[in-house]
Amino acid sequence: MRQLKAKWLEMRTPQATKTAIMVIGGAEDKVHGREILRTFFNRTGANDAYITIIPSASREPSIIGERYVRIFKDMGVEKADILDIRERDHCDSSYIKESLEACSGVFLTGGDQLRLCGVLADTRAMDIIRQRVRAGQITLAGTSAGAAVMGHHMIAGGGSGESPNRSLVDMATGLSLIPEIIVDQHFHNRNRMVRLMSALASHPDRIGIGIDEDTCAMFEKDGWLHVMGKGSVTIVDPTEMTHTNESHVGASDPLNLHNLRLHILSHGDRFHLYQRTVLPSVYRIPS
Amino acid sequence: MRQLKAKWLEMRTPQATKTAIMVIGGAEDKVHGREILRTFFNRTGANDAYITIIPSASREPSIIGERYVRIFKDMGVEKADILDIRERDHCDSSYIKESLEACSGVFLTGGDQLRLCGVLADTRAMDIIRQRVRAGQITLAGTSAGAAVMGHHMIAGGGSGESPNRSLVDMATGLSLIPEIIVDQHFHNRNRMVRLMSALASHPDRIGIGIDEDTCAMFEKDGWLHVMGKGSVTIVDPTEMTHTNESHVGASDPLNLHNLRLHILSHGDRFHLYQRTVLPSVYRIPS
Repeated sequence: MRQLKAKWLEMRTPQATKTAIMVIGGAEDKVHGREILRTFFNRTGANDAYITIIPSASREPSIIGERYVRIFKDMGVEKADILDIRERDHCDSSYIKESLEACSGVFLTGGDQLRLCGVLADTRAMDIIRQRVRAGQITLAGTSAGAAVMGHHMIAGGGSGESPNRSLVDMATGLSLIPEIIVDQHFHNRNRMVRLMSALASHPDRIGIGIDEDTCAMFEKDGWLHVMGKGSVTIVDPTEMTHTNESHVGASDPLNLHNLRLHILSHGDRFHLYQRTVLPSVYRIPS
Repeated sequence: MRQLKAKWLEMRTPQATKTAIMVIGGAEDKVHGREILRTFFNRTGANDAYITIIPSASREPSIIGERYVRIFKDMGVEKADILDIRERDHCDSSYIKESLEACSGVFLTGGDQLRLCGVLADTRAMDIIRQRVRAGQITLAGTSAGAAVMGHHMIAGGGSGESPNRSLVDMATGLSLIPEIIVDQHFHNRNRMVRLMSALASHPDRIGIGIDEDTCAMFEKDGWLHVMGKGSVTIVDPTEMTHTNESHVGASDPLNLHNLRLHILSHGDRFHLYQRTVLPSVYRIPS
């Protein structure tokens, strides 16, 4: 009997899951295949997952928080918390600390990236998240505004329909979970190529990552970014840039950027964040 | 007296002008500085210019033709013709032949690029233009639809707001004056980056040239493209492309393109069409 119980406990013990950072371009499928959310569910431990949802970017945090709780409970997670953090000093509560220290995954919802950074940046809660992500103890996902905050530099807003120029994009400081990148979300859906390029002119030491809706750039611990979902992930890499006029022209003058590298990636493609190499998915040639 | 007349004739002889092909992104300044149109005026011989305007792309060819005639007459050209070609068989008329053989510059107006190609492609008139452009005898300019027709492959229409995909762009055959390029015009103004990339996935042996409004890519005989005007010229160069799924996916599936080279050029920048090199303008550092 004791042996049987031990066997049962062993079976219940979470599989060693590969943690990751999942950067989602917004509007991920919440109804049908739910491929991206299901991957997050699996990466956080599947039926053993304890998911902590932070809906602070949203104007309706409890509604959006409850929606994700229902989705993850439907999938079969063991536990799902909503941390409805609306003020910075909420971040010191023991409930929040305990949830973030015990969970196997954290999910940042959409909304306004400035609001999200406003309540989370430089708090004890953020320290716990960052430290546990770095240690590979939790899988972190952010969608839309929750994706925008991933870099050190963050796109807070901007326009389109103009030549690239500095005044086209509003920059702020993000949560620096992947400091090397500048994320833009709802990317081709909202014609944001020009604002990402405008952002990179001021920050040519970063890599621009544009993520379409219902699409995810999943960053593994080994530096590989995997693409998953319906749209494309656009990489704008200024590593080899030979020239920009960014510091010499007025804020509304057209920017130039010479020798950027551009990759349009689709489902299954990979890009290495440090080697700056790209690999295609293995596709089936139609018979 | 005979000597005086010879001297007078010599002074009247057109200056040796450097001919070029001027590809204009549409909506060029027609009222104030008129920088681009004035450059065309100069390149066609200034006060000695004989400019032939082909307004066939437009639904209102005589109105738009007259507008350009007034502009160039204001500048001081010696002669300006309108070739109001509405049917292919007009192209055989001796008036049109004589105008195209005697002029120092041809200007293609905006409108619909399919209509322009419909009346001009494979006609005697087009043969004369092409032969005289190649011989460096005339400067050719095209704006908007008149720019779209420059390549062998032409973007006839398309959309935006989606991940790059084949069905996003409608391709047709252009007038092949610079066969190596695929032009897109009103470029950042109408968020056309995604349709140019979608076009290149099917034609990776070409170079994508996206030209903003009131901006010109001026192709010199030596292979250099010079940028002039208010906006930017975007070069998408697939020469080093390592992979695309273009031939393996459905028409609406997201395309991937790995290892494109991207240049955003502004006023004074240069790009060499065959060497694929880029040079910045010499700019004045603010004091």
